[in-house]
Parts: sequence; C-alpha cells; structure tokens
Amino acid sequence: MALPVRTNLKHLLCFIQKFNSPKRFLCAERSAGNKESPEGGRVFSGIQPTGVPHLGNYLGALENWVALQNQYPSVLYSIVDLHSITQPQDPADLRRNILDMAASLLACGIDPERAILFQQSQVSEHAELSWILGCLTTLPRLRHLPQWKMKSKVKNEGSVGLFTYPVLQAADILLYKSTHVPVGEDQIQHLELAQDLARIFNGRYGDLFPVPAALLSSTRKVKSLRDPSSKMSKSDSQAMATISITDSPDDIALKLRRAVTDFTSEVTFDPEKRPGVSNLVTIHAAMARMSVEEAVSQARGLDTFAYKKVVTEAVIQRLTPIREEIERLRSDPAHLEGLLARGTLRARELAAPVLREVRQRVGFC
Amino acid sequence: MALPVRTNLKHLLCFIQKFNSPKRFLCAERSAGNKESPEGGRVFSGIQPTGVPHLGNYLGALENWVALQNQYPSVLYSIVDLHSITQPQDPADLRRNILDMAASLLACGIDPERAILFQQSQVSEHAELSWILGCLTTLPRLRHLPQWKMKSKVKNEGSVGLFTYPVLQAADILLYKSTHVPVGEDQIQHLELAQDLARIFNGRYGDLFPVPAALLSSTRKVKSLRDPSSKMSKSDSQAMATISITDSPDDIALKLRRAVTDFTSEVTFDPEKRPGVSNLVTIHAAMARMSVEEAVSQARGLDTFAYKKVVTEAVIQRLTPIREEIERLRSDPAHLEGLLARGTLRARELAAPVLREVRQRVGFC
Repeated sequence: MALPVRTNLKHLLCFIQKFNSPKRFLCAERSAGNKESPEGGRVFSGIQPTGVPHLGNYLGALENWVALQNQYPSVLYSIVDLHSITQPQDPADLRRNILDMAASLLACGIDPERAILFQQSQVSEHAELSWILGCLTTLPRLRHLPQWKMKSKVKNEGSVGLFTYPVLQAADILLYKSTHVPVGEDQIQHLELAQDLARIFNGRYGDLFPVPAALLSSTRKVKSLRDPSSKMSKSDSQAMATISITDSPDDIALKLRRAVTDFTSEVTFDPEKRPGVSNLVTIHAAMARMSVEEAVSQARGLDTFAYKKVVTEAVIQRLTPIREEIERLRSDPAHLEGLLARGTLRARELAAPVLREVRQRVGFC
Repeated sequence: MALPVRTNLKHLLCFIQKFNSPKRFLCAERSAGNKESPEGGRVFSGIQPTGVPHLGNYLGALENWVALQNQYPSVLYSIVDLHSITQPQDPADLRRNILDMAASLLACGIDPERAILFQQSQVSEHAELSWILGCLTTLPRLRHLPQWKMKSKVKNEGSVGLFTYPVLQAADILLYKSTHVPVGEDQIQHLELAQDLARIFNGRYGDLFPVPAALLSSTRKVKSLRDPSSKMSKSDSQAMATISITDSPDDIALKLRRAVTDFTSEVTFDPEKRPGVSNLVTIHAAMARMSVEEAVSQARGLDTFAYKKVVTEAVIQRLTPIREEIERLRSDPAHLEGLLARGTLRARELAAPVLREVRQRVGFC
C-alpha cells in the first residue's frame, strides 16, 4: 500500500517567501504507508561536531534548520559524532567540539522545545540499525558514491568507517521514520541510498519506513574570502578566508577588509565573472535579511572598499548576539550536557520502538 | 605497561589429556595491561544460529566449548545472529534457528551457570563498538581476509555486512575484554584482525583491551559421509552426507551404512589414502571418548561393514540423550527465551562499562 508523502505545500510556500530564495522540494517518490509518522511529517538532519560553525555553515544549513523547526511538527537535529570519527580526531578536541556545536546550534536559534537536539553516539540504535542496513547494501552501491571517491582519494585510502558512513546516514534518517531531510546538493546521492534502503527493507520485511524526501536548499553558497572559487571551509589553511560565527567585530572587519574583490570599484552581482564582489553581496543580503537585488541597490554609489564597511556592519550586527549567547552557554557546560541528555532521552523514545520492530521483522525476536 | 597473558598451563594440560588430541595454544603476544579481566582469563566464542548443529559442529567446536567452561573462570558463548544476516535469512527460520541453537548448546552440555549464553543482537554494544573499530580499520586490511575472498566469489558480490563482519567479530571479542578465543584454523586471520584492533585502539587511546590469544584446536575434522574429501556441512546437498545431532537412531544407522569407504575391508587409520574409513574411525574415537589407536584396535578383525555397526552404536549412544534433551527444551520456548534473556542481562553487565570507557576515551563523553 502506497500513500503520498505529505508535501506540506503551505509550509513550503511560506518558507520560500521567508527567505527570498529559490527552494526546490524534491519528493523522490510516494512513500510506503507509515501510520506512526506524525501528521505533517518528521524532519531529520545531522551535523558533524566541527566546533563553532563558520558563516558558510550558518547561512548554508543552520538558518534553514531554524526555519524548519517552525514548519514541521517533529524535528530532530543530531550532532553526529559517530560520523566524525571516520576521520582521526583528538578525543579532547572532539569532546570540546561537541559542546561547542551544541552551544552554537542553540545560539543560532535551535529551540530544544521544538526540535530534539541530541548526540548521535548516545543513542545506540543508530549503530544497530546501520549494521542491519549494511546487510542490505551491496558493495558497488557504496563504491559509486561521490563522497567516498573524493575523500578516499585525498587520504589515499580511507577507513572502513569512511567507506560505510552513508549506510549509517541512512540509519540516522530511517531510525526515526523521517519523512523529510534537508540536504545540500552534494548529499543527494547519499539520501538516495537512504531511499533505496527504505524500499529494500520494506520490500523484504513489509512496509515500515517512509521513503524520505529531500528538502533541497539550493540557496546561498558562501565562498572563501581569499579564493571565491572555492567554498568557505573551516579547514582552509588561510585564516583570513573564513569568518567564524564567534569572530570578534575586529576580526570580522579585518577579514572583510582583506576579502578578495577585483579591479572594478562598482558593486554588482555576477557570480561567474565577479565571484569576489558577488560573495560579499551574498553575505550582505543574507545577514541583513534582504534580497540580492536590495543589497545591490543599497550599494549604489559605493565603491567596493566602502561597501565592505556596509557588509561588515551587517555581519557584526547579526553575529554579535549569537557570539554572546555562545559565550554564555560555553561558560556552563553542565547546562549544555543536561540539554543534550534530555534530547538523547527524547530521541531514544522515538528510536527504541522502531528498532524493536526492525529486530522482530528481521527475525531476531 | 605490558603484562603477560595468563597462559593457564595447568588447565591447558588437563585439556590435552582429557581429549587425547593435540591442542596448540597460540599466545599471539603479551597483552596490554588489563586489571579488570578476571584472574585466569575470559573466553569468548560465537556460533551462528544455523539451527540444530551436525556432528561436525559438535565434535569440532561444541565439545571444546563444554570443556572450556570448566577451565576458565569467565566464559561467554554468543549466538551471533547479527552475523547470520550477512547472508539472506527468512525471518521465521532465523527465529526458530536461534532457539534451536540455544536448545542444542544446552543439550550438548553448555551450563548457563558457568557460561554466559546470550543472543548477540540483544546487546546493542556489539554494533556500537563495531562502528568505532571500523573507523580504525583500513579497507585493504579487510579485503585480504580469506573469508571475504571466498564468500564474495561464491555469491558474486556480497553485502557491506559480509565485507565488514570481521570487524564485528573483533568487537564481539574485545567488548568483553576477552583474553582467549577458541578458533578453527580458518578463523586465525580474523582473530589477528581483533588482535590488531586491540593494539591500534590501545596505541591511540591508552591501554584498555587485552590482546586476545587463540585457543587453536587442530583436532577432529569430521568429513562428509558421502565425500570424505570435504568437511561435513549443513548445506551439503546430499542428505546422507551429514548427521544432525537430532537424527533418529534409524537415520544414523542408515547414513553410516551408506557412508563411502573403499575396496579394502580392513579398518585402518590413514586419512590421506583412506579418507572414508578414517573418517569413521575419527567419529568412533570421538563419540566413544577414546584415542584413534584404541578405536582401530577395537576394529581389529572386523570388516568395514561390521565396523560401521560399531560406529553406529557409539554415535547413537552419545547422541540419544542430547536429542532427547533438545526435544524437551524445544517443547518449552518460553523457558529457552528466559534463559537467553538472563544471559543477555549478564553479558550487558560486562559490556556496558567497557563501552562506556571506550566512548569516553574516543571523546564522545
């Protein structure tokens, strides 16, 4: 029996209007019957504990997360520490980064009353379901995923964890019978694996998992301030390339002053031919919550040097309360840990009955 | 700090004398310090829930398991259902096979007071530790394991689970800080992976896991009754090739009467030149708890036809009480389930603090 995934068009439209940016809603296909999913759907997404996010993370994903928690009745956001160890991590750094990410998410507007915010490794069902789904995944299916090709090439030869993490991602999603997953374009193929595994499981053991649909946000891509042909990235070797959301006003001003532009002083938006200046316009528009056209219009009469001051002002104004809230939250790790522990309990309450059902269908009990 | 693994020589000698068969004790290397392991060591082994075992399983592994529970202060035997789903399984068959295997182990002499008998999938820590160890395992390390080469060739292309199950095996062993693992020769390379992963984890996160030593039993290999060049196997297409431990006396008599021998009527032990007759001698000696020499001496003056009756008698005498006990246990599944549930609780009591420590060292908490 196949029921249509709830497309939630009303919410979607409101979402589009709110951000003045083109959003595409990919409903991969009609999902399997799933009476237990909450009316209106359930959103799941995960973020690796890389510590304090940068501007690219904030505008590319977190702002979207904040919006989604007001649009769906059930939302789960996971700090996916099991994924982070697919690359070597220093334990003390990892611990600090988990708490910093939790503080940052809260400071950016994730509301632990609306969204279940939790740490993946504390919910044992993720690894358990991942094992079971791995037994339904063929090796060639994983080998063709782009992340593996890319990451294993960089590192020469990755770990088993790095190879199999898309299966764990599928488990993350399916464990909560999630119906919607916000993803970047680079993660579409991974979501397709989760969709395939939902179908394969349902086909073999009877309908259980909805086939999760992608919420694809093809919006703002914030570029490196030093090399606007590449994405803003935490691992950028140039400190001036990336604005952290905890950067001081002085640091923000310095980094934007040094941002690469070109030899034309006028401000226009043309990402192909003028990537540096266009990146500034993108940042300005997003930070001041206006459209790109409005930002360009505000820049009329300013040269790029003067415009950088306008952008700086918008970034500082937006990030200052976030930075202050992160500092406040960081100063009380026990409070943060308590919040995460509560999220873990709530996530488990959802995960445990699903895994129980999975175990029964597979024949374990 | 490195402490020697306890070689438990007294027990080992007693073990050798008891079974009149050469046992080798492989102490792979001195293990890492491990103050929490029980004095005298801890044995772990697992068996897939293939249903009722055959004579080859009984003599090759289970008899050994029964002996080990009297020789080590702490022994865990797991019905490894997470491993079994690396190949497709019918859920109802799997469930029945789990209970049949539990009944068989108990009937063969596993004492749930001495050994912790439990179902792997009910202890979530196995899958969790497996994920963490997978992040410490390189892909080429897995690719070179013989089981994968063999099984993936037969099935053309196996699942991710089939590829990564040696990592789960390593987790099975290390989760209990096991010091000794009874293995067949074909599993030596898999145990070496567990040893490597103990060393890699200890090296990166500080001494935690003992490096488990192999208890290699190079004893009785029971062959197919129809083709003594291959092992006795449950999946043999010829029903006459394999004696199940629940076979009726009539079936046992028929299968042994039809057993392949050769054109010499005298009974001798020469596995190379006379594999069929030698297989009968092996079975006879093992079942009647005597040496091969004693068995051959008892066969003096008998032709192979008459000797088959002697072997039949020995097999029936040994298997009858086991068959009856399996039938009794099968008739009360609730009792069996209760026994397994108690084993699960005891296994978890050991596993939980180890995984808690692992999580902390990795930096999750």
